[in-house]
Formats: sequence, C-alpha cells, structure tokens
Amino acid sequence: MRISELARHSGVPVATIKFYLREGLLPKGEATSATRAEYTGAHLRRLRLVRALVEVGDLPLSRVRAVLRVVDDPATDLHRALGTLHYAVADDPPAPEDDPGWDAARRRTDDLLAGLGWRVTDHAPDRRRLTRAVAAMAELGRPVDDGALRAYAAAAHTAAEHDVARIGPGDTREEVLEYAVLVSALMEQAMTALHRLAREDVSATRFAAPGERGERERGG
Amino acid sequence: MRISELARHSGVPVATIKFYLREGLLPKGEATSATRAEYTGAHLRRLRLVRALVEVGDLPLSRVRAVLRVVDDPATDLHRALGTLHYAVADDPPAPEDDPGWDAARRRTDDLLAGLGWRVTDHAPDRRRLTRAVAAMAELGRPVDDGALRAYAAAAHTAAEHDVARIGPGDTREEVLEYAVLVSALMEQAMTALHRLAREDVSATRFAAPGERGERERGG
Repeated sequence: MRISELARHSGVPVATIKFYLREGLLPKGEATSATRAEYTGAHLRRLRLVRALVEVGDLPLSRVRAVLRVVDDPATDLHRALGTLHYAVADDPPAPEDDPGWDAARRRTDDLLAGLGWRVTDHAPDRRRLTRAVAAMAELGRPVDDGALRAYAAAAHTAAEHDVARIGPGDTREEVLEYAVLVSALMEQAMTALHRLAREDVSATRFAAPGERGERERGG
Repeated sequence: MRISELARHSGVPVATIKFYLREGLLPKGEATSATRAEYTGAHLRRLRLVRALVEVGDLPLSRVRAVLRVVDDPATDLHRALGTLHYAVADDPPAPEDDPGWDAARRRTDDLLAGLGWRVTDHAPDRRRLTRAVAAMAELGRPVDDGALRAYAAAAHTAAEHDVARIGPGDTREEVLEYAVLVSALMEQAMTALHRLAREDVSATRFAAPGERGERERGG
C-alpha cells in the first residue's frame, strides 16, 4: 500500500508517519520510484504498535526505539529478550549515595522480594523504582507497612499471571515480545486506572456523607 | 529556619527551593529583612511533598500546582476534595469522536465498573484512561478478556483497601489529603514496579531454560 493508505488504515497522519520513518521507528517501505514507496501489513502493524506506545503508553521516542531494537534483534533468546525489554520500557532511577533512608528502603524491598521467592534480577530497575516509592513514603512520615507491601505484591502477581497466561504456546518470538511490550505500556495504565477508581470507590464508602452518595453516583 | 537550613534538612538545593517559591509551589517565608526570610517546619513538609511529587511521582509542575490548590482550599469538604484531587493528579485523555473501537471499549469499561458496583463518577478521567488501554489492546489484536479485567480490578481493589485503611480517624483534613496525594503519586509507582517484577518472575518460570534460572537468580 502507499503511505496515504497506511495513514488511512492506521489513523496516523502522513506527516507523523514520515516523522517515524525519519526517526527509524518504522522501517522504510520498498521504493517503487524516486518519490514512492510501498508498505505492507507488517508496516501497519508496527505503526499501530509505535502509536500505542507513544500515545497510550506515554513512552518517550528514545524508549520506543530501545524497545523496538530488542523486539527486532533475533540474536537474543526469548527469555533474555523479555528481561531486556523490561529494562527498555522502564526508566532507571539512579540510587542516591550515602542516604540511610534509601538503604533502609532498599533492604525492605530486597527482603520482600526474597521472602516472596520471586525470580528477579538484582539489577532490575523496578527494584529501584519500588525502593524510591518506599523511601519517599517513609521520608514524608507515612511509612508503608509490610502488610500493605505484601498485599500489593500479591495483587501485582495475580495480574502478572493473567498477563503471561495470554501468551499462547504457538506464538512466534515476535508475537510474544510485541505482546510483552503492550502489556508493559498499556496494561499497566489499565492497572493504574483501576487502582485509582478502586480508591475512589473505597473512599466514597468511607468519607461520603450518606446523602451525598446518590449524587456522586449520578456523576456529581 | 533560613533557606540554607531548609535546603540542608530537605536535601533540595537552594536554587531549586527559590524556583519552587517563584512558581508558587512553596509559600513564601516570613520576611525578617529585605533579603532574608524565615521558614518553618510546615515549609519543610511542603517542600518534601513537592519534591516527592516531582521526582518520584513524575508529575509536571502544572499538575503539582493543581494538586496543592486542592489540598490548600479549606472550602471544599473532604470527600469532594478527595474526588477533585483524583482528577488533579491524573491526566485526562480526550475521548476520540466517531471511533467504534473506542465506543466498544468504553462500554466494556462501564459494564465492568457497574458490574463490580464501584462508586465512581461518570466523568472520572480514569474511566477514559482504562478505556484507552482496553481500546488499544483490541486495536492491536490482543483484546483483554473479561476474566483478566476482573482479576485486575480485584487486585486493584485490594491495594486500594490497604491505601484507605491507613487513614486514621484522628487525621486532620490536610493530613488525609496529603496522604491521598502521596498514595496517588508514589504508591502507584510501587504497584507498577511490583507488577513488572511479578511479570519477570512469572515469565522466568515459564520461559527460562532450566539451566538458566540459577544464572538469572544471581543477576545474569
């Protein structure tokens, strides 16, 4: 198909497609003349993936590029590629030096994961991300207790089991990796949204005056 | 305390504190001379909150300002303020027009929440955020099934119950609102991190070659 058709099928404007092509996020089409190129269903699929990562997943282009590099590199085996993807999607907060609060939070994070028996690498960026949240809550006088951390972990594991169960035994390497990217970029947005909506529900039960509930339900 | 002490106690550089003061994220200190102002423990507390929202929560300054406006406005009652905070923290994705995929996803989102009996407003931005993720997964050929959505919702609700349970009956209005902000900005980061770590664990079990697991556990 021509670039105009690619735009129509994907809903992505031609100018944006050209930008993605220049940025190397979308492979070039096959040139059919000096000014024309032909695109395939694979281009359309990749274009939709890029758009979802940028628009729904809020990933910066540099990270989208890193993610696609992993998906497109056939040299790494699937398990290793999944691990690398993990790091490509997440930002990697630096650990501060000489911060006793951070060290205490890091120990709690490590103890939690060790206690749960989860198989995660020592250098997973999300250990630091979790540590950062735990350290900040403590610094602000609202330390997270172990029970809440374990409840969060159990909830997250349930969601993760559903995520991974959706991978079929016949899926190709590319399909598995693409799906893993989508889960990281989109299903985490779904989880965050549900977490907030659930908090709205729980706090409505606890804080709304009895007369207010009906109004709230109607969208007040 | 002087601004230099505020910097030392908070770990935030003086230049950043001055920037926050100019941006109205931190109330001015009490002027003790033409070039000096005196700050209190309340300033330190607010400074730590702002830093956590910006650095850990990744909130843009405009949103931090909106959040603080809600926390500082004594006119709204607590329940209403909690609802408004909810919207101030979340970005508000626009709903596309004439998109049948979006409409189908929105119906699924609404049906899910109605079926669960959650008390959330019709215009909650997170309905759209959830819809956006559900619509994008479907568009990319990986529709989320109802079982997974319900499992996500149950997991999110468990986490939310722990969040709200931490609010004490003697907490002041400001304490409740500050805590609600922290949970939105920080504990959601913790949940996202745990969700990814859990996925690493589940996929290690499923995809790692038996010989590889030990290596992975050691951080390979």
